Amino acid sequence: MNNKLYYISISFGVAMALALFSCVGKVASAEQQPLSDVHPSLVLTPNGVEDIRAQLGKVPLFDQTLDLAIQEVDTEISNGIEVPVPKDLAGGYTHERHKSNFFTMQKAGVLFQITGKEKYAIYIRDMLLAYAKMWPTIDKHPAQRSYARGKIFWQCLNDANWLVYTSQGYDCIYDWLDKDTREKLNKELFRPYAEYISIENPQFFNRIHNHSTWGNAAVGMIGLVMGDQELVQWALYGLDIKVPGDVIKDNDGGDIQLEGQKEAGFLAQIDHSFSPDGYYTEGPYYQRYAIYPFLIFAQSLANMKPELEILKYRDELLIRAITALINQTNSAGEFFPISDSQKGMSLASRELVNAVSMAYHFGGNDPGLLSIVKDQGRVPLNDSGLAAAKGIADNKTEEFEYMSMQLSDGAAGDEGALGIIRTDDLTLVMKYAKHGMGHGHFDRLSFLLYDETGEVIQDYGSARWVNIEHKDGGGYLKENHSWAKETVAHNTLVVDKDSHFDGNVKEADMTAGTPYYFMADDTVQIVSAKELKAYDGIQMQRTMAVLTIEELEKPLVLDLFSVRAPAGTRYDLPLYYQGEFMSSNQKFETNNDLTPMGRESGYQHLWAEAQTDLQGDVYRMTWFNKKRFYTVSSIVKKGDEMILTRIGANDPNFNLRRDPGLIHRRTGGNTLFASIYEIHGSYDYASERPLNSFTSIKDIKVLHQSAAYVVVQFEVKTGEKYQFAFSLSDDSKAADHAVETTTGKLQWKGIYDLNKNIN
Amino acid sequence: MNNKLYYISISFGVAMALALFSCVGKVASAEQQPLSDVHPSLVLTPNGVEDIRAQLGKVPLFDQTLDLAIQEVDTEISNGIEVPVPKDLAGGYTHERHKSNFFTMQKAGVLFQITGKEKYAIYIRDMLLAYAKMWPTIDKHPAQRSYARGKIFWQCLNDANWLVYTSQGYDCIYDWLDKDTREKLNKELFRPYAEYISIENPQFFNRIHNHSTWGNAAVGMIGLVMGDQELVQWALYGLDIKVPGDVIKDNDGGDIQLEGQKEAGFLAQIDHSFSPDGYYTEGPYYQRYAIYPFLIFAQSLANMKPELEILKYRDELLIRAITALINQTNSAGEFFPISDSQKGMSLASRELVNAVSMAYHFGGNDPGLLSIVKDQGRVPLNDSGLAAAKGIADNKTEEFEYMSMQLSDGAAGDEGALGIIRTDDLTLVMKYAKHGMGHGHFDRLSFLLYDETGEVIQDYGSARWVNIEHKDGGGYLKENHSWAKETVAHNTLVVDKDSHFDGNVKEADMTAGTPYYFMADDTVQIVSAKELKAYDGIQMQRTMAVLTIEELEKPLVLDLFSVRAPAGTRYDLPLYYQGEFMSSNQKFETNNDLTPMGRESGYQHLWAEAQTDLQGDVYRMTWFNKKRFYTVSSIVKKGDEMILTRIGANDPNFNLRRDPGLIHRRTGGNTLFASIYEIHGSYDYASERPLNSFTSIKDIKVLHQSAAYVVVQFEVKTGEKYQFAFSLSDDSKAADHAVETTTGKLQWKGIYDLNKNIN
Repeated sequence: MNNKLYYISISFGVAMALALFSCVGKVASAEQQPLSDVHPSLVLTPNGVEDIRAQLGKVPLFDQTLDLAIQEVDTEISNGIEVPVPKDLAGGYTHERHKSNFFTMQKAGVLFQITGKEKYAIYIRDMLLAYAKMWPTIDKHPAQRSYARGKIFWQCLNDANWLVYTSQGYDCIYDWLDKDTREKLNKELFRPYAEYISIENPQFFNRIHNHSTWGNAAVGMIGLVMGDQELVQWALYGLDIKVPGDVIKDNDGGDIQLEGQKEAGFLAQIDHSFSPDGYYTEGPYYQRYAIYPFLIFAQSLANMKPELEILKYRDELLIRAITALINQTNSAGEFFPISDSQKGMSLASRELVNAVSMAYHFGGNDPGLLSIVKDQGRVPLNDSGLAAAKGIADNKTEEFEYMSMQLSDGAAGDEGALGIIRTDDLTLVMKYAKHGMGHGHFDRLSFLLYDETGEVIQDYGSARWVNIEHKDGGGYLKENHSWAKETVAHNTLVVDKDSHFDGNVKEADMTAGTPYYFMADDTVQIVSAKELKAYDGIQMQRTMAVLTIEELEKPLVLDLFSVRAPAGTRYDLPLYYQGEFMSSNQKFETNNDLTPMGRESGYQHLWAEAQTDLQGDVYRMTWFNKKRFYTVSSIVKKGDEMILTRIGANDPNFNLRRDPGLIHRRTGGNTLFASIYEIHGSYDYASERPLNSFTSIKDIKVLHQSAAYVVVQFEVKTGEKYQFAFSLSDDSKAADHAVETTTGKLQWKGIYDLNKNIN
Repeated sequence: MNNKLYYISISFGVAMALALFSCVGKVASAEQQPLSDVHPSLVLTPNGVEDIRAQLGKVPLFDQTLDLAIQEVDTEISNGIEVPVPKDLAGGYTHERHKSNFFTMQKAGVLFQITGKEKYAIYIRDMLLAYAKMWPTIDKHPAQRSYARGKIFWQCLNDANWLVYTSQGYDCIYDWLDKDTREKLNKELFRPYAEYISIENPQFFNRIHNHSTWGNAAVGMIGLVMGDQELVQWALYGLDIKVPGDVIKDNDGGDIQLEGQKEAGFLAQIDHSFSPDGYYTEGPYYQRYAIYPFLIFAQSLANMKPELEILKYRDELLIRAITALINQTNSAGEFFPISDSQKGMSLASRELVNAVSMAYHFGGNDPGLLSIVKDQGRVPLNDSGLAAAKGIADNKTEEFEYMSMQLSDGAAGDEGALGIIRTDDLTLVMKYAKHGMGHGHFDRLSFLLYDETGEVIQDYGSARWVNIEHKDGGGYLKENHSWAKETVAHNTLVVDKDSHFDGNVKEADMTAGTPYYFMADDTVQIVSAKELKAYDGIQMQRTMAVLTIEELEKPLVLDLFSVRAPAGTRYDLPLYYQGEFMSSNQKFETNNDLTPMGRESGYQHLWAEAQTDLQGDVYRMTWFNKKRFYTVSSIVKKGDEMILTRIGANDPNFNLRRDPGLIHRRTGGNTLFASIYEIHGSYDYASERPLNSFTSIKDIKVLHQSAAYVVVQFEVKTGEKYQFAFSLSDDSKAADHAVETTTGKLQWKGIYDLNKNIN
């Protein structure tokens, strides 16, 4: 990537943009090699099609997917072609119709290639001619909501979606079309269309952002189909146009131009969107959305511009991004709902159906991926899909091995990370990554816990019902800002009832959490990270250890949240457990009259259902969910309170779920919140038999606590005592440590020490 | 059953009871025929065992169940025999140990017969000898909670459980034991044990109640094994002892003696416990519990006293009771949670595993039952289980056909009923049966609605976590009385914020709802019933129709609740919808400060989260649950209010679920609540695509309303108008009706009329 952009300040307008044609795309022309004129070559290839035809009837998963596609497309064909004048927003008729059209054209193209039936080609041709007829007659979409209004849809983003899919359908019938029709479509529909979402909307096309990835892919793919070098150059290297300054934010509040942004185009997207581990700073929900144009355009480039070696780019980053995505899921294949995410989005999505088969086909035929493809129950109708379906038919499937891993954030991998710890049934996720831009939440050092039944400790996700019109048209709800993004909505420390970074995205975006230690042995796994910027003058460090204890049925999660802060600081540490409160060793005072817990920073959405001034040394609470018991045991300091909360206040449209929570409240200076989370027992509704419904933790206490060390001890019900010591400031594996504890002197080597019955 | 009991007033005591031996059981002695002395004969039979052995390895489901039993029993054998001195309540160590012992002995007996391995017989013998040794040394169980304290357990009921299972194990090793051991066990353990739970506790044994069914079965089964005619007579015909009057209620508040009760014993239980349709007045949850002793003793009697023809008794009532139970389940096989029921109890329970195979084997080999056995995944290890497993192995399985049906209540079938309406995906249940004794709820004319995803409109069930010690030892919680039983906790009309029958069980038990009409055609299904006693001077009639409307994707539920009452009566009609509020056509005022809605009758547990004075003619509200949309459309009368509620106030131990509800509030005299419940559309989290998320009901209005008739009209979005007319007081199918409606005169023949576009 030596492509430099020359910023030309222009007063933006269509006329000006058109005038600039001649100088656009020149820069990289030296790299140009002739484009292949074989079709299809975008995603399907002639050899691939031949192979698919030869395998028909022999590869069940491929055949099933094909049959479904035939049913779908045949239904659409029999319904007739509809190309309405654009009018509606997402969810509305014209929007959904055009969306359905591009999906159908893409599938029809595949069916034409595979079955050879002309009706599919005719359908695409006639629909494209209808679009070509309409195109010159329409102006910008009438809805004015978007920072980059489209023509077919309300935003360029959807126009780009259309072109990414439609290019594939067009590629499949390109050679079948007569020359006149082809030229007409190229000239009257596709080139103007591509220009519209690129040079006419550089504030959309020239960003480092998933919107632009779609735009780049769309323009690049149609360029490849038409043999239009210029479009391909724009797509790969961005426009030689300075984005006009009249639009500086997108609709989600994201910056149009990143500070110091020097590049644009598809290769720059790959450089900047992912960390070296394939992590995407907006989190897996948005990564899933963004991954499709990355992969489908990459596939096209691999076929048509093999000299780019796009799949090897940045050390095979695109394939690694898929692996990273797969690893950011729970046992149901659902993505961790960090940042703005709708829960339930999963490996079953259309984007992942394409991605996983592609990772299999282009990424070395990992048989573990086949178990995911099998669960998906469908494959993309292309070379990748055939390869994966054949792998399954040939009984090559193995279980995908989900691993503990730390995924670094930031283009260079040095801006925080996401820590994922797994044992057989348990998944612990701790977030100390970047903020995640406009879609980020103020959730530094927050964690999520899953077992095989699903969420144990939840992250709320976003306050949004995507595409559901009832809920403010399906967009982000105002409670997404007032609740879901706020720190108190997360399982992390709130200081003085204010969110991290005082709720300022710009501030939050400037720094990341600091990874301190990540280690995944068989019986001990540890993640530890620091956050030094979220609150002025306050240093936070969370250390979570997943410990396999031989006396217990399941591993324990030890949570040590240490804080350095001035005396008198007020802490709230929420825990959003999922399920029904069973019992506590403390006597709660319950409230029959509920009032909101505050006026801002998310507290206005919480009711306190009960509270207690904690007595004794340990707080215990057991809850029940989906046939399992869970217990939290927390060390109590004098003056601590515990509050049982419920989400739902100040929610005039019932946009929030009435989920329960627990807040550990403390006033103090340097302090340690120490808890054990325990998954235990079971209950069967048919036999009504509870097993192991009580905690196995008899006691937990702090033996030492300082700026440099923390040592805790816990005792299990059979009497064994475990001691866990951790060096908070020296992460050298060779260092020797010695501390005085309440039970004597403790010495160890390295970052942590776990001992049994030493006293 | 010509067996008359002579009531002798005695001052009750063990000594006296023993003195009465000679006259007990005489009455029916004329019927006595010699008992078979073949063993095993109780549940297994020599021929059956031979057949099982011959089939081993050929019938997968049987083999799997057998393997599991071997694993379980072998583990127990290797753990050694433990027969601790009784001490604990349910959930405690000694209770669970003795419970585990009887399950293991029963299974070990089966394994001895099938495998011929002596270790199983030795295990049972040694354990029985341990019990025989302990028996004379123990007095009544130390816990004093029960109206009928046991010896091994805290209540005779559990002692009877022990004997029902242990008899089966004993039967299997009876012939293998040496004579001395046999005589010792008979004399020192089993006869005294049987006497303890019968003549020494007639307040337990001589009732018409599921407790006594267990008692009768226990005593009868050990009598059959030992060849003890007297015990068998007691079991079949009850004791010739008047129950002493010092105990008049059991621990659930049920009467020890029913008014006018003249009979007792097993045959009387069959006579009185079930309606002719096999419905059990306490509802399916308790029927499931009670069915095991009915069936297992019946099986024993069928084998050992064939002359009784017990399975043909009352027109094959026991088999019919199983069918009735199966039909009282939702699509997940879970019983309707009417009356005191813990949700989740299902066809997977141990009792139903025995029952369904037995119904197959003894009830004519209905292949539909095999699909249920298949889902159960295990079979009883006896002749029935082998038959069912063979049926499955032979590919005879068919889907069980769940049908619409009205199950009458009352021994004679004339005391109300439960109406069940089913279409493919929808199940509607309306309750107008008897109160259900101590476990009944004040829920006349309440309804439940399910679709294939589960609950749409829920019944709360009981406030109890069965056997979960955290929750008050696993027994009924006080919120069961203060909330779950109250009328406002159900989907039925509350008058003047008071429960039906003023919350008086005795009053409620004296009458039943009145079935008016039940009809199940292909496209129209109707259930209508009256309740005239729940509130003084108020007549209620609910008519629910499930209508298949060709323009709509799913059938509609039309709900017409008509009331005749004095002017100024205050009505609350709750609707416990499951899911998240999406939108309403009315503007709710939400409350940030919540206070309980009342002080009693269940209102003290409700918070009003929002309310509105209804405007216009129709109330519409859409909610979302498990990927589906649901809409209620209700006709609004001037002055109506709607309240969105949440359960949870006055709940100091978090015993109640925070479920939402909707209350339609009206003040008036004679009136009609008319609503349509609509299941529509879908949402897929992976595609984020909502389909048909808005209601299809454009309008609904009353065209006529009087004491005799109701006529409503609704319009669907495509413009079609449907008119539903119903005769409320003349259920003759031949009668001609004519009413004036707001759109003209309407004439029809029969009880109802459904018309399309007649105006």
